[in-house]
Amino acid sequence: MSYDDQNIFAKVLRGEADCIKVFEDEYTLAFMDLMPQGDGHTLVIPKEPAENLVDLSDDAAMSCIRTVKRLVKAIKKAFNDSGVIVMQLNGAAAGQTVPHIHFHIIPGSIHSMRAHAKDFGNPDKLRELAEKIKACIE
Amino acid sequence: MSYDDQNIFAKVLRGEADCIKVFEDEYTLAFMDLMPQGDGHTLVIPKEPAENLVDLSDDAAMSCIRTVKRLVKAIKKAFNDSGVIVMQLNGAAAGQTVPHIHFHIIPGSIHSMRAHAKDFGNPDKLRELAEKIKACIE
Repeated sequence: MSYDDQNIFAKVLRGEADCIKVFEDEYTLAFMDLMPQGDGHTLVIPKEPAENLVDLSDDAAMSCIRTVKRLVKAIKKAFNDSGVIVMQLNGAAAGQTVPHIHFHIIPGSIHSMRAHAKDFGNPDKLRELAEKIKACIE
Repeated sequence: MSYDDQNIFAKVLRGEADCIKVFEDEYTLAFMDLMPQGDGHTLVIPKEPAENLVDLSDDAAMSCIRTVKRLVKAIKKAFNDSGVIVMQLNGAAAGQTVPHIHFHIIPGSIHSMRAHAKDFGNPDKLRELAEKIKACIE
């Protein structure tokens, strides 16, 4: 699969587009989803360019799941031991909107989750939620 | 979190309950979800006893993501390059029904996915779909 390096997450990784950052290490970046399906909806992406899980190297997949695990723990703590949904869509046919693999981490329940990639969240509120999550990262 | 070793997936791992197996290695097991949210809905579980992603060891999380990746690839191939949703629910509050961590791999789209843990699939059809997926595992 050819990777489109003009996608918005590639631009975020190159510093050409902004994000509300929550966490970063050598291999991964986590930031707020601008169209949250639940309050505190965070994305984890690998720095390696890959469109979906099949294209991603095993090493990068493992770095992602480590960061996802860390964020799930922080989000549970930040939101009073809420349920946490981890979701990762492969392909436009699945509903993937940005062609750089991303793991959604969504506080709440699968039964009440808001629609995917539909409504923008309030930027001030997103920044406030990001601070709340960052304070709980171990 | 205390782990309930009487949950159905713990019984499957001990051979005390049946499953329609798709894949197994030293650390993980994959089998058909009996209440599929899409045709070909497969579950990946670690053999390590853990209720959710926070409780799971990093090593077992990495084994899981490797097997999930392998299955996503097989499912894409088995179902004509369909979209594939990966989903993992943490806690009853998120909608998790079995307290042994499991990764859902669901062919199709987030916009047309059937309800979670609601309707049983036809066992013969599930076995047929399992064979189709198994034939595509590399």
